[in-house]
Amino acid sequence: MRISELAAVSEVPVATIKYYLREQLLPEGERTSATQASYGDAHVSRLRVIRALLTAGVTIAETRNVVAALDSPPAGPYDLLGVAHTAVTPRPSGPVDTTRALELYERLGGIEAQCDPRLLAGLAGALDTLERAGFTVPPAVLDRYVDAARSIAEAEIDGIPADSPELAVQYIVLGTVLTEPLILALRRAAQQVVSSERFAGTEDPAPQPS
Amino acid sequence: MRISELAAVSEVPVATIKYYLREQLLPEGERTSATQASYGDAHVSRLRVIRALLTAGVTIAETRNVVAALDSPPAGPYDLLGVAHTAVTPRPSGPVDTTRALELYERLGGIEAQCDPRLLAGLAGALDTLERAGFTVPPAVLDRYVDAARSIAEAEIDGIPADSPELAVQYIVLGTVLTEPLILALRRAAQQVVSSERFAGTEDPAPQPS
Repeated sequence: MRISELAAVSEVPVATIKYYLREQLLPEGERTSATQASYGDAHVSRLRVIRALLTAGVTIAETRNVVAALDSPPAGPYDLLGVAHTAVTPRPSGPVDTTRALELYERLGGIEAQCDPRLLAGLAGALDTLERAGFTVPPAVLDRYVDAARSIAEAEIDGIPADSPELAVQYIVLGTVLTEPLILALRRAAQQVVSSERFAGTEDPAPQPS
Repeated sequence: MRISELAAVSEVPVATIKYYLREQLLPEGERTSATQASYGDAHVSRLRVIRALLTAGVTIAETRNVVAALDSPPAGPYDLLGVAHTAVTPRPSGPVDTTRALELYERLGGIEAQCDPRLLAGLAGALDTLERAGFTVPPAVLDRYVDAARSIAEAEIDGIPADSPELAVQYIVLGTVLTEPLILALRRAAQQVVSSERFAGTEDPAPQPS
């Protein structure tokens, strides 16, 4: 199909598609003349992925890394996770103390020698933000975070499609990046559910039918 | 203390402090003359909170809502949660279908009539992003997300300080907003830990000492 048809099918404006081509997020179409190229279904689905990543707040440069991983997947699932994490883990703005982060990593079952330094820096950065705000996560809550993270990761890693490397790549890279808003939204919903269970009737109770 | 001393103690430049004052993130100091005001420990700790929120990616307008909640807390924990969630939940960019979001809300134990529409829209938006990317969360993984969210929320709500309304406000508002990066960082760390356990030895094994 021509670029105008690709725009119509994908509901992405032609100017935006040309921008993605210049930024190397979208592969070139097949040249049909000096000024025209032909695009296929792969471009439609790649456009969906690009839009989803950008909507999720991933930057152009990070999106380029993610789609590069989709095109030339690294050797195995473990390396793929590394690419997905690197794309979305903010770089620490300065040196961070990783002592407590390493302790959490080990509580997750991790071994220090196998720990990705960037991942550890991300964990340390999150702890540092809390500390600078003067906020302490109660030990019982932190325990629950560690257990929940481990439980989620087990289901996710077990769910990696074994029969298709292409699906595995898509699952790992997109699953890591795009499900983050879902997990956070579920946690907020659960907070309201549990809160209304715990505090039901203690504030501004709605009138009950008699 | 004077504004220059507040800047030194809090490690926030004077110009930035003046900006926070203009944006009503930081309360005015006590006037000591026509051109001078005096600041106290409350300003130091408020500056820490502001810096933490802004570092965590919360906007100026949202930060203003959060600090307003800290200053004039709503009646009870349930309302406070609402303020914290409203501050950090992105507004949906258009109408969203909330059918599947409501189903998830009910699986968390929620009752439709009690569901905050904005929260539901946030959940629906997260599902929508995944769908538009053509990504399906496997049912077993989604089950685990729901269980983990519920488990985390129970520990968090149980941890609300009961003896001090001021601490309760800080716990709920900051705990909701600032712990999100920690939860996501823990999940990434857990993914790498579980992945290296599952795939240990299947790719590029490190030489073992004999």
